Amino acid sequence: MSQNLKGHSIIAGEHIVGRGKTIYGYNPATGEALEPGFTLIDESQLKTATAAAAEAYQSLSTLDPEAHADFLEKVAENIEAIGEQITRRLLLETGLPEARATAERGRTVNQLRLFAKVVRQGDFRGVRWDPALPERQPMPCPDIRQRKISVGPVAVFGASNFPLAFSVAGGDTASALAAGSPVIVKAHNAHPGTSEIVGTAITQAVADAGLHPGVFSLIYGPGSSIGQALVSDPAIKSVGFTGSRAAGTSLMRVAAAREVPIPVHAEMSSINPVFIFNGVLSNDDDGMSDLASAYLTSVTGSSGQLCTQPGLVFVPTGEKGDAFVMAVGAVTGLTAGQTMLSEPIYGSWKEGVEQLAAQPSVELVGKGSEGETQNAPAPVIYQATAEQFRNNPVLHQEIFGAASLIIRYDSADDLINVIRQLEGQLTASLHLTHDDYSTAAPLVPVLEQKVGRLLVNDWPTGVEVNHSIVHGGPFPATSDARTTSVGTLAIERFLRPVAYQNFPEALMPAPVQAENPWGLNRRVNGEVRQED
Amino acid sequence: MSQNLKGHSIIAGEHIVGRGKTIYGYNPATGEALEPGFTLIDESQLKTATAAAAEAYQSLSTLDPEAHADFLEKVAENIEAIGEQITRRLLLETGLPEARATAERGRTVNQLRLFAKVVRQGDFRGVRWDPALPERQPMPCPDIRQRKISVGPVAVFGASNFPLAFSVAGGDTASALAAGSPVIVKAHNAHPGTSEIVGTAITQAVADAGLHPGVFSLIYGPGSSIGQALVSDPAIKSVGFTGSRAAGTSLMRVAAAREVPIPVHAEMSSINPVFIFNGVLSNDDDGMSDLASAYLTSVTGSSGQLCTQPGLVFVPTGEKGDAFVMAVGAVTGLTAGQTMLSEPIYGSWKEGVEQLAAQPSVELVGKGSEGETQNAPAPVIYQATAEQFRNNPVLHQEIFGAASLIIRYDSADDLINVIRQLEGQLTASLHLTHDDYSTAAPLVPVLEQKVGRLLVNDWPTGVEVNHSIVHGGPFPATSDARTTSVGTLAIERFLRPVAYQNFPEALMPAPVQAENPWGLNRRVNGEVRQED
Repeated sequence: MSQNLKGHSIIAGEHIVGRGKTIYGYNPATGEALEPGFTLIDESQLKTATAAAAEAYQSLSTLDPEAHADFLEKVAENIEAIGEQITRRLLLETGLPEARATAERGRTVNQLRLFAKVVRQGDFRGVRWDPALPERQPMPCPDIRQRKISVGPVAVFGASNFPLAFSVAGGDTASALAAGSPVIVKAHNAHPGTSEIVGTAITQAVADAGLHPGVFSLIYGPGSSIGQALVSDPAIKSVGFTGSRAAGTSLMRVAAAREVPIPVHAEMSSINPVFIFNGVLSNDDDGMSDLASAYLTSVTGSSGQLCTQPGLVFVPTGEKGDAFVMAVGAVTGLTAGQTMLSEPIYGSWKEGVEQLAAQPSVELVGKGSEGETQNAPAPVIYQATAEQFRNNPVLHQEIFGAASLIIRYDSADDLINVIRQLEGQLTASLHLTHDDYSTAAPLVPVLEQKVGRLLVNDWPTGVEVNHSIVHGGPFPATSDARTTSVGTLAIERFLRPVAYQNFPEALMPAPVQAENPWGLNRRVNGEVRQED
Repeated sequence: MSQNLKGHSIIAGEHIVGRGKTIYGYNPATGEALEPGFTLIDESQLKTATAAAAEAYQSLSTLDPEAHADFLEKVAENIEAIGEQITRRLLLETGLPEARATAERGRTVNQLRLFAKVVRQGDFRGVRWDPALPERQPMPCPDIRQRKISVGPVAVFGASNFPLAFSVAGGDTASALAAGSPVIVKAHNAHPGTSEIVGTAITQAVADAGLHPGVFSLIYGPGSSIGQALVSDPAIKSVGFTGSRAAGTSLMRVAAAREVPIPVHAEMSSINPVFIFNGVLSNDDDGMSDLASAYLTSVTGSSGQLCTQPGLVFVPTGEKGDAFVMAVGAVTGLTAGQTMLSEPIYGSWKEGVEQLAAQPSVELVGKGSEGETQNAPAPVIYQATAEQFRNNPVLHQEIFGAASLIIRYDSADDLINVIRQLEGQLTASLHLTHDDYSTAAPLVPVLEQKVGRLLVNDWPTGVEVNHSIVHGGPFPATSDARTTSVGTLAIERFLRPVAYQNFPEALMPAPVQAENPWGLNRRVNGEVRQED
């Protein structure tokens, strides 16, 4: 499979020339505009995509598990087949290093295949059955069965920082398609070419599977206006978004103001606090330096542009803490800047760092060197006291990119107060030894109320995609803490239960038929019965 | 256990004299005010309740399953112990018949005991485990475990039409307490005495279980202002509501406008369409009359004040349909009005019926007789054509009480168009025989997109409380179709997942400890493993 980029939206299988203006991708390492131009659609063209998605609903949502899983695997296969082409374009558009691009491509196809397994396994259909009790007094009890169905078409917003794994064929798209929801992806305008290549691979899989072409559309449009029109469209029943707090909360407001409000699953802002206890600082200098290196690796990887980047690290006051901070300073000095995703993202980073540095008593701990390309600033680490942190909201703000703030604390009591003040977070990490367990234990239930994932002696970047992961958390980490945007539980975002009372087998959908043609595990009278 | 009503809010175990005005319950059958007066709290008194609920979170959410289930059963036991007192007051305050009051009391304690079983069974904790893969290349994979925890304190709004089963100790309270959430109930001002008696039973159970008293509060306050203050309070993390569309959407707006938006589970408005097919009309006159009687029983039970009351019935045009409508008219004439819950509810019913009757070509099918008490209007059935229904939004509005509208349709194609136009519903019912299956089958997937529960040859009132029931559905039936407010799945509304990465067993909460001290079923590497 080889392609020349066409530079248009793909709406229900057709390349549609946008009636709006034309935009270009840019190489952030050089500032150079990349051909071709991409035409932006207007709102009437958007209607074609949303109407087709609504029409396509039954085509996808009624597929049997085997055909449904095959379709997801075909998407993965098509992406793999043009892997080189994807990476080539991605490197130009994002400035990310090749190893990261290759790893992200692998994660993208693995996610799709993991959801294919989930579709084959079938527990997400949530089948429940309370058989009739005809002899019950004073009234017989009817047969009632339950299953979960897709909520309907889903709008997905491609993320700037995961041009593959959280973009056109990313986690939101994979989980929505697995749930049985047609998907309309609003491409991120920072990687339009990568988006088209991946969108073409999905479109081809839809056609190969014989599905209604409205199962997938990829649209290019002016950021906020077309995004808001998409979320406002009555055909759209849910939203998956990864991006800034401002953009995410704006979509939340649009969704809440609809005549029929819909859920928004926005993954937005997190500073991912890390708590370092005295125990781990009781080692030799090499140990200090290893811990400092691991911290900096987590801060600077992908130029710090990760949702789980540790933006806030709590270090005890005292000599050992001082020694650790010094080691951090030394390691930071050895780091080099990497190209950021775009000039505007670099601009926001710079503004955030300048604002932080200007706060009273915030001190520079260490600074690396600038990268050789454009938009590749020197990584920086600052520190401040717990008291300053408690009193200054600026110190709580996310800086997206390679920067982090160390807060010096006196006691675990300090920490509990600080944690109570934190906004919702994707992650919190504890670095400790056995000796610190009794100090750390009371923090765990307080942290649980603030975050989606807790780690011990590990750094939050490098999110595993499996059944147990939670990439979620209380607002503003996400708009809906009841779910996750990474891992197999993500499918539940796009499902809702339907009950069938006293239904004849002839009218019963396959998942709830008594003879269980799909071999699903079922909760019968409240207990799960497993099928072999 | 015997009580004299005190007429005050119960905040974290204490009777608190409200600083606002005093209100009275009324006997809707006579218009008489009922002693004592109930003092309404102001917003600063509300803060005492929300602060106590936040403080009480750990006390409830960390209980082991046995103690947790015992607590729910103790609430049920305390309610049963004062069953006579509850019924006596309820009859005075609501005008409901005694059989209904007794049945509802039974349902209330059964719900609590069902959730106690759910807590003992433990699947709602959603334990998942992906064990470490230390040999994985290029990077080892850490151990990750997941469980669900309570979202935090929940605000519950007592419903007027279920003064027990959807009020102080109703479904929302039971599912929230089972999830581990402290609850603050805003009493419905139409049954303040019933609320106090039940609230005292819960308060006693909290004390007996040795829980933090903030686990439960019952507040009386001026309807909309204190309710909005409660939903706005930062300590509140979710909302359970059953009531009118206007009140529900108003709470949704308040929740969305918070600095930290929270979910609202509002069950609001549904007209519960019923589709009668030709097959069931091909019977003798007795058959027609039985079907008509069953319809009227469902329309008039509890004076029609049920969320699942069939407000809209589709009947084919033609002779058989005419004969059925005539049978309905005859049966309606034999019905008698029953006291409605309150004078304002009666007023809304009257207004709705008058507005419906005034629409072009809406015809009266039948009218019963007025009841002998106040606020006991004659049940009424109207009819109109499918074309009128499609063109006049007034015909889509819920009339809460004993009234229903028959729509005459020509063909199943008519029905598909009509269904597409319907708002979201709690239920839809099909009355048919084997001969109608091929006509009805294409409607099922279209109806699934509109409703939470589908019935065949059954009427939607009389909701079973079990594992498979769905009492939910797309807006405006509810504010969040991804869940249910009746049945055991309701617990999921108040839960969110948390993941533990690389955690030592010593810091791991009990549900996710490797040795599985609570004997929970666990999803290991994606497959459920059952414990005996």
